Amino acid sequence: MMIEHILVVSPMYKELKTILEKEKLHNLFRFLPEAVLTQEDLGWADALVSFNLKAEYDYSHVKWVHSLGAGVDRFLFKKNWNEEVLLTRTVCSFGQRIAEYCLSYILKDLQFHDQFQDLKRQKSWQPKIPKLLNEQKVMIFGTGEIGQTAAKIFSILGMEVYGVSLSGNEKKYFKEVLTDGTQFSRLKEMNYIINTLPLTELTSYFFDERVFKHLTNAGFINVGRGASLDETALLEAINKKQVRFAVLDVFAEEPLPLDNPLWNHPKVYITPHISAVTTPEEGMACFLETLKNLEENNPLHNQVDIKRGY
Amino acid sequence: MMIEHILVVSPMYKELKTILEKEKLHNLFRFLPEAVLTQEDLGWADALVSFNLKAEYDYSHVKWVHSLGAGVDRFLFKKNWNEEVLLTRTVCSFGQRIAEYCLSYILKDLQFHDQFQDLKRQKSWQPKIPKLLNEQKVMIFGTGEIGQTAAKIFSILGMEVYGVSLSGNEKKYFKEVLTDGTQFSRLKEMNYIINTLPLTELTSYFFDERVFKHLTNAGFINVGRGASLDETALLEAINKKQVRFAVLDVFAEEPLPLDNPLWNHPKVYITPHISAVTTPEEGMACFLETLKNLEENNPLHNQVDIKRGY
Repeated sequence: MMIEHILVVSPMYKELKTILEKEKLHNLFRFLPEAVLTQEDLGWADALVSFNLKAEYDYSHVKWVHSLGAGVDRFLFKKNWNEEVLLTRTVCSFGQRIAEYCLSYILKDLQFHDQFQDLKRQKSWQPKIPKLLNEQKVMIFGTGEIGQTAAKIFSILGMEVYGVSLSGNEKKYFKEVLTDGTQFSRLKEMNYIINTLPLTELTSYFFDERVFKHLTNAGFINVGRGASLDETALLEAINKKQVRFAVLDVFAEEPLPLDNPLWNHPKVYITPHISAVTTPEEGMACFLETLKNLEENNPLHNQVDIKRGY
Repeated sequence: MMIEHILVVSPMYKELKTILEKEKLHNLFRFLPEAVLTQEDLGWADALVSFNLKAEYDYSHVKWVHSLGAGVDRFLFKKNWNEEVLLTRTVCSFGQRIAEYCLSYILKDLQFHDQFQDLKRQKSWQPKIPKLLNEQKVMIFGTGEIGQTAAKIFSILGMEVYGVSLSGNEKKYFKEVLTDGTQFSRLKEMNYIINTLPLTELTSYFFDERVFKHLTNAGFINVGRGASLDETALLEAINKKQVRFAVLDVFAEEPLPLDNPLWNHPKVYITPHISAVTTPEEGMACFLETLKNLEENNPLHNQVDIKRGY
């Protein structure tokens, strides 16, 4: 594919420009924040590099859109996409990042960090034996690049790792991969549930009473998309002791509105969408690799399947 | 070795009795708490199984002492030991336990748990990108069973792991093993320092200004022995930003006295000696294996070298 004009739209446009200028590329670039983006820029461009644009644009005249994030729901979910436009996404250290994020909260739980912090405040010496990772079962929803990297790390550390995917196809590092439906029989054994699913028509409000009613005091971690979770059903599941605590990095509305009851709930940990962030360096490394593959007609490993939505 | 009479002295003596009674052993047992232990019991016994006895006893008439803990300083440190008495120690999941304990606090730090918990209280959405394990350097003091298991897990997760030992001999999973003295040149690069050393004449007050002055804002984790740390020097090192925070599981005096300033320090995390606990089941499994090896004259992998003290 021939790519001459590349439009980079991002709040980080200055950092991205600094990184790309070192590369001495033959392509012509425009770097902008979204506030000054016009349809004229899109008409000029062969390729658009961006993430999470707030307004709606017509992308049908560019040849290629490269997402600076792993999730592409902002382009596809409840949208019409011209299938002649190539869509690629950033795949970099997200798996490692998400695995470490989840592991940190699992270990926080097993090692009783909160309880020992409370006891310290009271100057109280009350031994309690931490639990080991190799006594834990975890179910990861999504067995793609991110889910599989997490499964690899968790299984090396001795956890028993189950997966849930559309196909239910066996995958390395998972003891068993189930499909939506067959997972229900296993849910009651799980100590932790992790969502890494992309947001699609199939995963919108996926985690609701239908799933939670099978859990017995499990930890729930959402690093997928906020709109895959029914927040009201989660709070209800915590009350019913189906969910013991929740760690939420993503929300249906971000930033999380001040009047959202999740903020005040003692069993809910909140982080501001930081579990899998693209740094300017990593984002540009993945973009440059994709550009090189396109220009040399090499196979792409990060092309989005428009019908599946990821 | 012929072992007829076995004396088990422990606060957990009832649990230990229940576990051992299932084994239908030919040996004769007495199970007691320390409060009722007499020198007559020790005279009767061929073997003593115990941990952390508070009073002083004459062990020279038993053939074998088996420690229910990994550390044997309670028997050897500043004591005279009759070298004809065999001393063995418990080696079980300590390495795994200590590795997970340390990893939990390293990830808590890298993932900004405390900061995000504060921001949640303020309902404030302020993204901050967590740091990755593969950008971290850690130095583990002690390259024995426990230190090496921790090194294995940390290096698999991508950390750069350095060791410090008496010999400085290279060991698997360590990028480099240094000796006390040569370590100083590397200390300034370290993000985390972990002490797993046994308490001996050489390691008493080992971590003092001599070590801390080389650190640049490192996390310090003590899972070895409390008496290896100069607590006053640690607090001074925190003030000087040589140490960024400390995680302490062991103390010179346990339980930690109420008037100890560590309780109130915001940069000090305190846990009540729980990072490597012998559960009754694991303790008895290791004892039974050692007993079998002794009775069958098999080699012992957990015999203490009295001169080295571990």
